[in-house]
Amino acid sequence: MEIFNSKLEEEKVFRDPIHRYVYVQDSVIKALIDSKEFQRLRRIKQLGTSSTTFHGAEHSRFNHSLGVYEITRRIIDEIFVGSDEWDNEERLLALCAGLLHDIGHGPFSHSFEKVFDLDHEDYSQKIIMGNTEVNSILQQVSADFPQKVASVIGKTYENKLVVSLISSQVDADRMDYLQRDAFYTGVSYGKFDMERMLRVIRPSKDGLLIKASGVHVVEDYIMSRYQMYLQIYFHPASSSNEVILTKIFDRVKELYRAHYAFETAPKHFMTIFEEKVTVHDYLTLDEAVCTFYFSQWQNESDEILSDLCKRFLNRNLFRYIEFADTDENRRIFEELKQLFHAVGINSEYYLSVNASSNVGYDEYMPSDKVRQPVSLLLADGRCEDLSMHSSIVATIMGKRAVFRYLYFPKELIKALPTSKEKDAIMQLLKLK
Amino acid sequence: MEIFNSKLEEEKVFRDPIHRYVYVQDSVIKALIDSKEFQRLRRIKQLGTSSTTFHGAEHSRFNHSLGVYEITRRIIDEIFVGSDEWDNEERLLALCAGLLHDIGHGPFSHSFEKVFDLDHEDYSQKIIMGNTEVNSILQQVSADFPQKVASVIGKTYENKLVVSLISSQVDADRMDYLQRDAFYTGVSYGKFDMERMLRVIRPSKDGLLIKASGVHVVEDYIMSRYQMYLQIYFHPASSSNEVILTKIFDRVKELYRAHYAFETAPKHFMTIFEEKVTVHDYLTLDEAVCTFYFSQWQNESDEILSDLCKRFLNRNLFRYIEFADTDENRRIFEELKQLFHAVGINSEYYLSVNASSNVGYDEYMPSDKVRQPVSLLLADGRCEDLSMHSSIVATIMGKRAVFRYLYFPKELIKALPTSKEKDAIMQLLKLK
Amino acid sequence: MEIFNSKLEEEKVFRDPIHRYVYVQDSVIKALIDSKEFQRLRRIKQLGTSSTTFHGAEHSRFNHSLGVYEITRRIIDEIFVGSDEWDNEERLLALCAGLLHDIGHGPFSHSFEKVFDLDHEDYSQKIIMGNTEVNSILQQVSADFPQKVASVIGKTYENKLVVSLISSQVDADRMDYLQRDAFYTGVSYGKFDMERMLRVIRPSKDGLLIKASGVHVVEDYIMSRYQMYLQIYFHPASSSNEVILTKIFDRVKELYRAHYAFETAPKHFMTIFEEKVTVHDYLTLDEAVCTFYFSQWQNESDEILSDLCKRFLNRNLFRYIEFADTDENRRIFEELKQLFHAVGINSEYYLSVNASSNVGYDEYMPSDKVRQPVSLLLADGRCEDLSMHSSIVATIMGKRAVFRYLYFPKELIKALPTSKEKDAIMQLLKLK
Amino acid sequence: MEIFNSKLEEEKVFRDPIHRYVYVQDSVIKALIDSKEFQRLRRIKQLGTSSTTFHGAEHSRFNHSLGVYEITRRIIDEIFVGSDEWDNEERLLALCAGLLHDIGHGPFSHSFEKVFDLDHEDYSQKIIMGNTEVNSILQQVSADFPQKVASVIGKTYENKLVVSLISSQVDADRMDYLQRDAFYTGVSYGKFDMERMLRVIRPSKDGLLIKASGVHVVEDYIMSRYQMYLQIYFHPASSSNEVILTKIFDRVKELYRAHYAFETAPKHFMTIFEEKVTVHDYLTLDEAVCTFYFSQWQNESDEILSDLCKRFLNRNLFRYIEFADTDENRRIFEELKQLFHAVGINSEYYLSVNASSNVGYDEYMPSDKVRQPVSLLLADGRCEDLSMHSSIVATIMGKRAVFRYLYFPKELIKALPTSKEKDAIMQLLKLK
Repeated sequence: MEIFNSKLEEEKVFRDPIHRYVYVQDSVIKALIDSKEFQRLRRIKQLGTSSTTFHGAEHSRFNHSLGVYEITRRIIDEIFVGSDEWDNEERLLALCAGLLHDIGHGPFSHSFEKVFDLDHEDYSQKIIMGNTEVNSILQQVSADFPQKVASVIGKTYENKLVVSLISSQVDADRMDYLQRDAFYTGVSYGKFDMERMLRVIRPSKDGLLIKASGVHVVEDYIMSRYQMYLQIYFHPASSSNEVILTKIFDRVKELYRAHYAFETAPKHFMTIFEEKVTVHDYLTLDEAVCTFYFSQWQNESDEILSDLCKRFLNRNLFRYIEFADTDENRRIFEELKQLFHAVGINSEYYLSVNASSNVGYDEYMPSDKVRQPVSLLLADGRCEDLSMHSSIVATIMGKRAVFRYLYFPKELIKALPTSKEKDAIMQLLKLK
Repeated sequence: MEIFNSKLEEEKVFRDPIHRYVYVQDSVIKALIDSKEFQRLRRIKQLGTSSTTFHGAEHSRFNHSLGVYEITRRIIDEIFVGSDEWDNEERLLALCAGLLHDIGHGPFSHSFEKVFDLDHEDYSQKIIMGNTEVNSILQQVSADFPQKVASVIGKTYENKLVVSLISSQVDADRMDYLQRDAFYTGVSYGKFDMERMLRVIRPSKDGLLIKASGVHVVEDYIMSRYQMYLQIYFHPASSSNEVILTKIFDRVKELYRAHYAFETAPKHFMTIFEEKVTVHDYLTLDEAVCTFYFSQWQNESDEILSDLCKRFLNRNLFRYIEFADTDENRRIFEELKQLFHAVGINSEYYLSVNASSNVGYDEYMPSDKVRQPVSLLLADGRCEDLSMHSSIVATIMGKRAVFRYLYFPKELIKALPTSKEKDAIMQLLKLK
Repeated sequence: MEIFNSKLEEEKVFRDPIHRYVYVQDSVIKALIDSKEFQRLRRIKQLGTSSTTFHGAEHSRFNHSLGVYEITRRIIDEIFVGSDEWDNEERLLALCAGLLHDIGHGPFSHSFEKVFDLDHEDYSQKIIMGNTEVNSILQQVSADFPQKVASVIGKTYENKLVVSLISSQVDADRMDYLQRDAFYTGVSYGKFDMERMLRVIRPSKDGLLIKASGVHVVEDYIMSRYQMYLQIYFHPASSSNEVILTKIFDRVKELYRAHYAFETAPKHFMTIFEEKVTVHDYLTLDEAVCTFYFSQWQNESDEILSDLCKRFLNRNLFRYIEFADTDENRRIFEELKQLFHAVGINSEYYLSVNASSNVGYDEYMPSDKVRQPVSLLLADGRCEDLSMHSSIVATIMGKRAVFRYLYFPKELIKALPTSKEKDAIMQLLKLK
Repeated sequence: MEIFNSKLEEEKVFRDPIHRYVYVQDSVIKALIDSKEFQRLRRIKQLGTSSTTFHGAEHSRFNHSLGVYEITRRIIDEIFVGSDEWDNEERLLALCAGLLHDIGHGPFSHSFEKVFDLDHEDYSQKIIMGNTEVNSILQQVSADFPQKVASVIGKTYENKLVVSLISSQVDADRMDYLQRDAFYTGVSYGKFDMERMLRVIRPSKDGLLIKASGVHVVEDYIMSRYQMYLQIYFHPASSSNEVILTKIFDRVKELYRAHYAFETAPKHFMTIFEEKVTVHDYLTLDEAVCTFYFSQWQNESDEILSDLCKRFLNRNLFRYIEFADTDENRRIFEELKQLFHAVGINSEYYLSVNASSNVGYDEYMPSDKVRQPVSLLLADGRCEDLSMHSSIVATIMGKRAVFRYLYFPKELIKALPTSKEKDAIMQLLKLK
């Protein structure tokens, strides 16, 4: 297999509903797409549990990763090439980093990472540096190429412009997922004028800049992002399914530690439980594998595990009420825990507060060391922060959107025999 | 749970990228959607192996089934209601049949059905009539309601108009999948003017009619279907992955019968191998379960099974050449079998002819007893076959599109040590 | 001709690129569309001079008026009908008002109105009340029907809900033009989710309300409007052409008053100049008539008139620089006037400040007596201003966007012989 | 003004609803767009009288011409450049020819040309070769450049590949108008996959070729064209308005020859009536000028002229019945003429047969010397006619679609006093 820097004999083209076509001209990119680690991304959904709320959005990270690659390629080949600020020797590096930026995602990314204290960016780097097909393909470019790709993804690569292509306020990652997730969910919010955006992007040694004349397209993009977080990514029904998923993993971990006699032992998760997971173990995990276990565990004798798995598979969600972080609510939560205990419902698994907040337009805070704000390139050559030129963005910038809900199993509660505890629970949860 | 014919207190709305919204007003429909048998359709892809060729098209049968329901609902509520030809007592029956028409699909439908000689329409009826949540929900409408729904899906229900809503040339099923599959694959072929189509549909006791003034929209629709079959459904790369899938099931069945000592025994498939599968067994099968097994079987000592599973999961396809059904090709096929044997490649699993033909615009043959041709309603009240009013359709009608390819593992062949058999194979398969 | 409240025998359908179809069921609506006053709207562009900047946007007020009618119809027939807050006796009145709301527009509306101190809403009412086909059609509904329609357009009709359908923050007029103008110009800004908007609109005796759950769709709509004003409606190149147009009318008026001997006398404008214009005179004016005159006046011996007409027809625009309303700029303006005089360029016609400001998201100021803010209908039945529930809207609400430019004929200036006045002009206007 | 082959300092970009952006890099192209002859195309509608049937489609030939330029540019810059078959020295020539191909269109092109026996392609060449701004701009490239551009438009230029870019089955002209007209009318028929089409186009010395793998996209395109002709271009209501327009011109010509005393003399048409029209005279004509005259002629004492002008402006169409070219119908036509005479209606102006046939998919006849069939480039390098590889196209190719209607003024007839002639007319025209 000769790869190196070579071009394919014939350009390879993938039909794509967002970009119409994804164009591949480099042997390395073709080989990476064909690698088993990249094909695994077909078995991990882009939106995790949101696909059960927005049934149109069943697309995978494979799908999205091709899109990020394509936007990166277009920015370089259509805008950067020929500019003094851009060294085209970095092209292949940027393309590989764009393609592989999500390679370390585990099944149902966020819940999984939270429960097991894993980080997908770590794993992206481990997969790129480990004994993998991806690594051996990248090695063929040069011995230090895998390390370079990993450092771009890790945001430590010295050329900030390359890093900014896949990690900045207006990077290829966000530009793809906003459009893609809007397309698949069927909402109109995520649409912004990417063709115009591409025309106002400029390279600089400190990262992507936006020409001042493009201020409105960026405003539109920032507003799209804001709307997508509010409407899609933070939707409380999706979070409900994520709560259930988290509780399944919690329960399995607890049962495993308690030496519970599983009918179907959690073989694929053991090294994770024992914190000795290898890259190879990690790569065996995908959503098909998890779903298989959930499907088996429906029949376990442990009622909690069985019930949670049924809920997840059959989308029998927890109900929710808004539940701001107040003293009063902290008191109510404690009271509910005791009442649940009294009526025999395990509050550890059936009463949960979930807050969505840290992601989203909040990322756009100047305090954020990593995600730099959008710099506008003014007519006179100076750069200034977008928020100084857009009162819309200035407003959003300072805000913190917190969505906080309390989740609980409505039908379990309603099925309880009459008691004063039941009445109290019903009242606190505003059930009728 | 009170269901019967009742309306929901508040209409339930699903965001849908094709129809913008799917509207549910009936308790029965809501309950069916929430049933575990219907939720299982989330784990079965609409296009099976085509999603590996058209990466945008990872949508499920759940997704499509909601769409069929919605089109059925719109035809009834916007067009039929109030017509003398339509009895609105049939509304709920038609809606349930539209929603459930694919409930019996197994994983990777076509390959799976072929290998194990199963039929998804049979299973749709068995699931509706069996001991299932779906059945118990339908029972609440009336004791004979499940039977009625099953007979609509089985096309034996006496009111042909109801049957034609989900099984005819311009039924809700086709109207949804053409648009949906075109949307998700990102091609423009499947688009036709459904709003116009809905306006020219008329009810009659023999089924749906199209007003003569709508002849061009139907032409456009028939041409869309023709193009979708040629470009998407019969794509040889998708078929390649389907060949591999079929061979996996063949191999597992053979190994099972030969009492091969599996590391991961095919538990979920045993009753199928032994032809004593129950509805309950059948419902445990979905694509997550199959994918889990494929993933495990990569590590089996049987090299053929292991290799095929790796191919399927990592999209390492068989190559193909066009291979018409001629005497010459039959001779070549026999010769290749012997040559494969000589070089140690099992032709049973590694040499395969696949023909796509029976589906598609071929369905539009008057000889087809079940799928009636499109009847145009003329201005004078008479009905005539569409093909008498459209030379375009008349042309397509008579044609049989046959796509026939020979599939083989190119890289295995190229890796063979030099020999005259290898040379002969390379020449016959036009490899360089 | 029997009209009254009667329904058409067969619904009349118009293909529309925004709404797909416009549906007409009422004889009155059909007759109004066919009236000569309404057909005249085909000869008045929706965006006036903007069509020379955005070449895709050559659509007429006829086109838009059908759209306003259709949105009004959908709100009534899909949302309001059956509600206690809505009296369906008002349906035809609202439809007629929606259809006719722009009937009084003159050619190139804004410039024309400004120069001649006319108001299109006045003329809408005069046309409806005058001796016109429109009036005689409306009379057939009832003797006081024309007066009612006029009062809805004049915002004095007692039922505020009817008025709010065509004159409020989220009325059918705005919903149509934002989508339509975005579609025709080819920008993505004007898109918002109208289907969702329709679902969250509620009738009340004080006008349209928005369900609180619809806050985000309204935010999106308000942002769309804001972007459309900034990007399209206030575009300085369109304003340049409008400045030229205004100057043509100014010049003709001046010449007429000075008894200039026109080769082509401004017959169609005389009663306007003399302020004795009748409804009938007014209706003879459209953009074809104006354009004919401009075309003739290219050959007048008056050089200013001839030059301005050539500029308008051949899109030879004035250049512009930003020109805020400051003391310094007022001084510069006076200086330029003197310099222009010195070099022989008439500053009355060739130096002009144009400010766009009063329209747009500014309309959304609570101080505005007529255009009420958007009221949200809360879950508990109370209503509150949108801005209390959306920090985005609250920000926009307080702002006043002022776009102020100084326009001048760059190539005339550059063609001047060298002189210190020319140098001074070039420097003040930043010309090189 | 330095033009020659120079590039603009900054690329000029036009927003376009079909192509998103039209990109201009060459000074010549910029200057041509700014020329008064090209700006005149803003005042000539692309679809003539069809805009009164499809109200969305009010776009001009200016709009379309920019689109043809842009597709030509993309084919050259994205596909042809670098190919051995393409000499990039021809680029500017092809772009100018694409941009100017419609420069000779008169107002309401087809009717106008028919009545006065003019040909827009002749005038395109005359304008390019005459004393015009366009000519003087082209001269600056080289002395023989205007002649070259004219010969490409006249299809006599020696390099057939250049000619085929704007005059062949799959040229930039057709590709633009199908998409553009579909977009503006709001129908879905005209959509085909232009991105895919561009990828399968190949240059050859004999003109554009299509790679055999692109057969289906061309089929889809041919079908789109077929549907657009049937549904849009041949729509009988548009033809009705065109009949009226033709009759206006006929009547004016007749009155002029009969020395009728016009209140508003047809000054702009006199040199045409006298067959001494110059390029300069021709260029003064546009749809605004014609519309002005029609508007004035509503008040002429000649009742026929006045009535026809009112009909045209107020869209008071002639009714129509299908009227095939049979002996029976020829007899009926003669009978109607006599009956019209008897009741005092001038059949010369009020009874008219209009056939649409020669344009459309009929163009695709091999007998057509100028419009060559589509050649497919086979894998082995040979070329074959598309119809040999597509039964769909083969079918369409042989057909001749004839739409033939008889037009008449229904309401005039119905308003006649009772008589046996009136009865006979009513019966022959199937009026009730």
